[in-house]
Amino acid sequence: MSRRLLLFSNSTNHGQGYLDHALAEIDSFLGPVRRLVFVPFALHNGAAYGAKVGERLAAIGVEVAILTADEAGRRLAREAAAVFTGGGNTFRLLKTLQDAGLLSILRERARAGMPYLGSSAGTNIAAPTIRTTNDMPIVQPASFEALGLVPFQINPHYLDPDPGSTHMGETREQRIREFQEENETPVVGLREGAWLRVEGAHAVIGGARGTRIFRRGLEPEERGTGASLDDLL
Amino acid sequence: MSRRLLLFSNSTNHGQGYLDHALAEIDSFLGPVRRLVFVPFALHNGAAYGAKVGERLAAIGVEVAILTADEAGRRLAREAAAVFTGGGNTFRLLKTLQDAGLLSILRERARAGMPYLGSSAGTNIAAPTIRTTNDMPIVQPASFEALGLVPFQINPHYLDPDPGSTHMGETREQRIREFQEENETPVVGLREGAWLRVEGAHAVIGGARGTRIFRRGLEPEERGTGASLDDLL
Repeated sequence: MSRRLLLFSNSTNHGQGYLDHALAEIDSFLGPVRRLVFVPFALHNGAAYGAKVGERLAAIGVEVAILTADEAGRRLAREAAAVFTGGGNTFRLLKTLQDAGLLSILRERARAGMPYLGSSAGTNIAAPTIRTTNDMPIVQPASFEALGLVPFQINPHYLDPDPGSTHMGETREQRIREFQEENETPVVGLREGAWLRVEGAHAVIGGARGTRIFRRGLEPEERGTGASLDDLL
Repeated sequence: MSRRLLLFSNSTNHGQGYLDHALAEIDSFLGPVRRLVFVPFALHNGAAYGAKVGERLAAIGVEVAILTADEAGRRLAREAAAVFTGGGNTFRLLKTLQDAGLLSILRERARAGMPYLGSSAGTNIAAPTIRTTNDMPIVQPASFEALGLVPFQINPHYLDPDPGSTHMGETREQRIREFQEENETPVVGLREGAWLRVEGAHAVIGGARGTRIFRRGLEPEERGTGASLDDLL
């Protein structure tokens, strides 16, 4: 697969502004490409969301068109030089893409090499399914199947257990283990500040704080910034 | 509806043993009924889960039969004196009930007055849908529609925002607001330690720490132990 992917855990690091930690990497990843189509469907107000992203990416000279869930949107997706899918609710995002016939277009384009960028929910849908999202299932998509641009699952905003917590809900690690009781797919827990850059058969961890890799029947494995994930591709 | 429901946020309070905070209320709720059918499907190992519950409820003289996802289970559900559904993963629980044809049996029985008890995932499925679960969507049920024993959604393990947190994932309140961007149904955020007891047209909050009520377009409202939820029924 001639894929080119840049998958962020999150769009905003604590104490920083929107995309502050991501902008230099986006700039380098896009290279000569200076326009992209933004997918805003994870938030309720797509127009406002797209405007905010357009303003932010103007700082690195990248022009933004906002995807819509209609025929004009399908045309835009077919012709996009690159696509960036923003965070929010993964179920809403996936359902909108499915219902508008956009999911298959984006899948085909990204698999053929169109640069794909995602953050949080936008990173979730790059995986085979959305079965490792943290989001609330506020709407029901016809299927949990997503873009499948990598063969492993990703858990964005990956959070280590807090030893001081008195909350009795499941830790993130427990939730991922539950996933692997039902599914064999490996899961990459992507901490806030970290990202994955995938070019064809190579994947490398970027940013800060690294990843935790979960494989059924094995102890979780830490992989930090600069480490390869080629063995999972 | 002649329903009788006892819906716990959680089965274990921090620093206590399994069902410690719930046992006296279960005893009072069941009254003369001294046997129930336990629904273990939210966890992977149903037999071990059921055995643990059986041991715990023996302390108040309640005998436990463990539901299975087959014809014997459907017979058990049709004849149950009471049903208790334990916590774990709500998607796995709902899918198992749907696939085995148990959901409609439990719905009919509980709506006709068979005492229904739930904890966490077992409380989620008492609502119209599972759209306000905190759980990871590790498997895909055919539908998010659940038992619909009350007309409002419940969010178990409801957690107030932590002002000291540096994590950038959505707070629980933000997630519930996202739900209400897409759905009009009120949501009862049920804190750990709290429960709802519903008898016909009356619902009252029990236990500790109370609830936070979310209605579209209104500010969230606090309701504490002893308060009524009749207006939401």
